[in-house]
Amino acid sequence: MLTVLSGGVGGAKLVLGLARAVPACELTVVVNTADDLHWHGLYVAPDLDTTLYTLAGLADPSAGWGLAGDTTVALDALAGFGFEPWFRVGDRDLATHIARTEWLDAGMRYTEVVERLAAALGVQSRVLPMSDRPVRTVVHTAEGDLEFQEYFLRRRAEVAITGIAFAGAEDAPPSPDVLEALADAEAIVIAPSNPFVSVGPLLALPGFREQLRQGPAPVVAVSPIVSGRALKGPAARMLHELGHAASALEVARLYADFLDGFVLDVADGEAAPAVEALGPRVLVTQTVMSTLEDKKRLASEVVAFGRSLSRRP
Amino acid sequence: MLTVLSGGVGGAKLVLGLARAVPACELTVVVNTADDLHWHGLYVAPDLDTTLYTLAGLADPSAGWGLAGDTTVALDALAGFGFEPWFRVGDRDLATHIARTEWLDAGMRYTEVVERLAAALGVQSRVLPMSDRPVRTVVHTAEGDLEFQEYFLRRRAEVAITGIAFAGAEDAPPSPDVLEALADAEAIVIAPSNPFVSVGPLLALPGFREQLRQGPAPVVAVSPIVSGRALKGPAARMLHELGHAASALEVARLYADFLDGFVLDVADGEAAPAVEALGPRVLVTQTVMSTLEDKKRLASEVVAFGRSLSRRP
Repeated sequence: MLTVLSGGVGGAKLVLGLARAVPACELTVVVNTADDLHWHGLYVAPDLDTTLYTLAGLADPSAGWGLAGDTTVALDALAGFGFEPWFRVGDRDLATHIARTEWLDAGMRYTEVVERLAAALGVQSRVLPMSDRPVRTVVHTAEGDLEFQEYFLRRRAEVAITGIAFAGAEDAPPSPDVLEALADAEAIVIAPSNPFVSVGPLLALPGFREQLRQGPAPVVAVSPIVSGRALKGPAARMLHELGHAASALEVARLYADFLDGFVLDVADGEAAPAVEALGPRVLVTQTVMSTLEDKKRLASEVVAFGRSLSRRP
Repeated sequence: MLTVLSGGVGGAKLVLGLARAVPACELTVVVNTADDLHWHGLYVAPDLDTTLYTLAGLADPSAGWGLAGDTTVALDALAGFGFEPWFRVGDRDLATHIARTEWLDAGMRYTEVVERLAAALGVQSRVLPMSDRPVRTVVHTAEGDLEFQEYFLRRRAEVAITGIAFAGAEDAPPSPDVLEALADAEAIVIAPSNPFVSVGPLLALPGFREQLRQGPAPVVAVSPIVSGRALKGPAARMLHELGHAASALEVARLYADFLDGFVLDVADGEAAPAVEALGPRVLVTQTVMSTLEDKKRLASEVVAFGRSLSRRP
């Protein structure tokens, strides 16, 4: 059993590769839910849906999020009612949000809701929200606090941030299913997701980081930073704004207390000794995933690397 | 100023004719909202939307409800999640429900919400929900109580009813806008809508029936029953199940205490003396509206008839 921790579009690429590199049913994906939002009364979970749609083979191949070929009839009509369509929801996508909202309102556990969605979409791997309780990423900026999607989409991540908080995290333990997936994994992979706003929320859950540190499974992270630039999204900018160098080494430093392995891109090979000095072993390889072949090849290498690492029993 | 009381598809036909027979901006439509429903967390108002879409020229010409050319991508996907699609909502239609829900949740008065929707859709007549407060039609049947849409759509009105109740009506006064539209009208027209579940809820609001009885404007109703059959929907069946004859005369009897004029179809001309014996004057004409011309012609005749009637000042 392999467990991967992931956020949205960037992480989902490796997740898809992993679902091809190991039997899909032996893969568990633990997904960030701190960028979930209420959108016109509906409960929307961008990272979970990106993961589900990607694993189902339904994701829009160009955007990485949303459903391939989806229409925006409802969204266009909402614009006609004066609602600014900064958050893009397609018509078929809307059904996912309606179903999730309905099931959550009926009192179903979030983990079960996602299990139902996954089954209906034909996803064979296990996809778990990080917690059954709500957590909300709040971005502190010079202009005041912003909800994550407001910062990320409406403001296009162009406001300088001064800090990040995860509201509710202290009351949101990882679900029993997540704890089991961490405890039972032969290896835990951290996808090349944003360390602050995608992986950060998981690490902020009570006991999560300790479980990574003390659990039996080796933990391998794939750097989301290549040549000082983020593979996707504002990770490099965030590192800089929060006082770090925008480098793969800095990401390894953020994870150093629980890390057994770190995957560096060939472009950053010279950082290997510095990363190894922090503790983890290093794999240097091609980490930029353009094609499905890239994803499968990187995933296979990451799995082999993870299996080669061992922890005290 | 002309005020028309209406329900859904059947009434909307005459409403459209009236909006062509008088200047559209001089027409106020007071619409039944007792068949409003919560659909997957969204606040849906079938009769109001039918009226708005019809007046905006956007209604599906074959169904009479919904939007012409609308798609059902979201609905089809919901079916994939196991939700039985007995209540048909199109994608563009969905935006109306999302906007309404959002505005109501923000605390906006229902009358203002409908005013906004009407303005965005380009409706020039005034469309008013009967009350700013919620009322819910409950259909008593041998199989137990049913919500109206459950009875009407899911069960296709094929369950025998034993009674009808309007939950919440006692706490739902007509809005100030409705009372003004009744007081200021030169004539009040009751569209050929179901007397029990379309017009009935309006009459159940505190003071509404008294206003029709005692107000200055003459009240003219167009029979929804022609030759013992309903023009649309289960009105004839309901008359029968509730112990009345399924006839235009019976409808006139239901309204007799406030009626100044009654419009009978030529097919029911022989009932004119019996209706007149109840009090109102009678106009016998073609009331079946197939084309827009039919609607305009009937509307013009009804307006002229209404204007010819007078009440003690």
